Amino acid sequence: MSAASESIFAKIVAGQIPCHRVFESAAALAFLDINPLAEGHTLVIPKRAVERFDELTADEAADLGRAVREAATRVMRATGAPGYNLLQNNGSVAGQEVPYVHFHIIPRRPADGLGFRWLAQKSSPDALAALAKRMMNGG
Amino acid sequence: MSAASESIFAKIVAGQIPCHRVFESAAALAFLDINPLAEGHTLVIPKRAVERFDELTADEAADLGRAVREAATRVMRATGAPGYNLLQNNGSVAGQEVPYVHFHIIPRRPADGLGFRWLAQKSSPDALAALAKRMMNGG
Repeated sequence: MSAASESIFAKIVAGQIPCHRVFESAAALAFLDINPLAEGHTLVIPKRAVERFDELTADEAADLGRAVREAATRVMRATGAPGYNLLQNNGSVAGQEVPYVHFHIIPRRPADGLGFRWLAQKSSPDALAALAKRMMNGG
Repeated sequence: MSAASESIFAKIVAGQIPCHRVFESAAALAFLDINPLAEGHTLVIPKRAVERFDELTADEAADLGRAVREAATRVMRATGAPGYNLLQNNGSVAGQEVPYVHFHIIPRRPADGLGFRWLAQKSSPDALAALAKRMMNGG
């Protein structure tokens, strides 16, 4: 058993805990967040219990991308919100509360007080070039 | 011409403006943000110029999901950060500054001051059920 497979989202996928479902595919499930940041706040999860996004297989990441697009389309139609954020947190340091991969679809409206804290740093072209070179070689 | 196809990211894809590339596939490009929120802050974009995530085709969303996974793996290896956020903003109301789909991969470290402003609301089970029902029918 992993932290993911023991989490509440594994129980939702297994049907042991109910959810307000908005979309389902063979590989993914989308449902409303019951503690929403905004009306229509939706979560999209893979059906396989995995803790972090980079632990998905490439095909699972692709399936999740498809499901997030379909769910986002439905959220926008249903809410009429003028915009939205996709947010996916990996690790407690990043604000991940349930140890199971989940995308938040967060509808945004003017003056809603939401958004990411945007504290940009200075960077040097040389440091960026060196870092990019390492990543191009695999990281 | 669309806002996306006239934006700086279209020029980066076309090779008219340089970037610090970290990954490239047939459908997507990943490169370092030159105004990073943290060391290793990376952007992942589709090669076709589209403004919002839900305007991608299902296959494009899948390809972008694959590319984000690969880029996130490289960012984590290269930086050693204990976590990261994926963030993708749609609409100026959501903080989108370049009108071209882009995922941010934001490495997170303790006490970095970053993160999403988490202002959860009350919700009623009846309202959630009614909203989910509309979305299950397409939105």
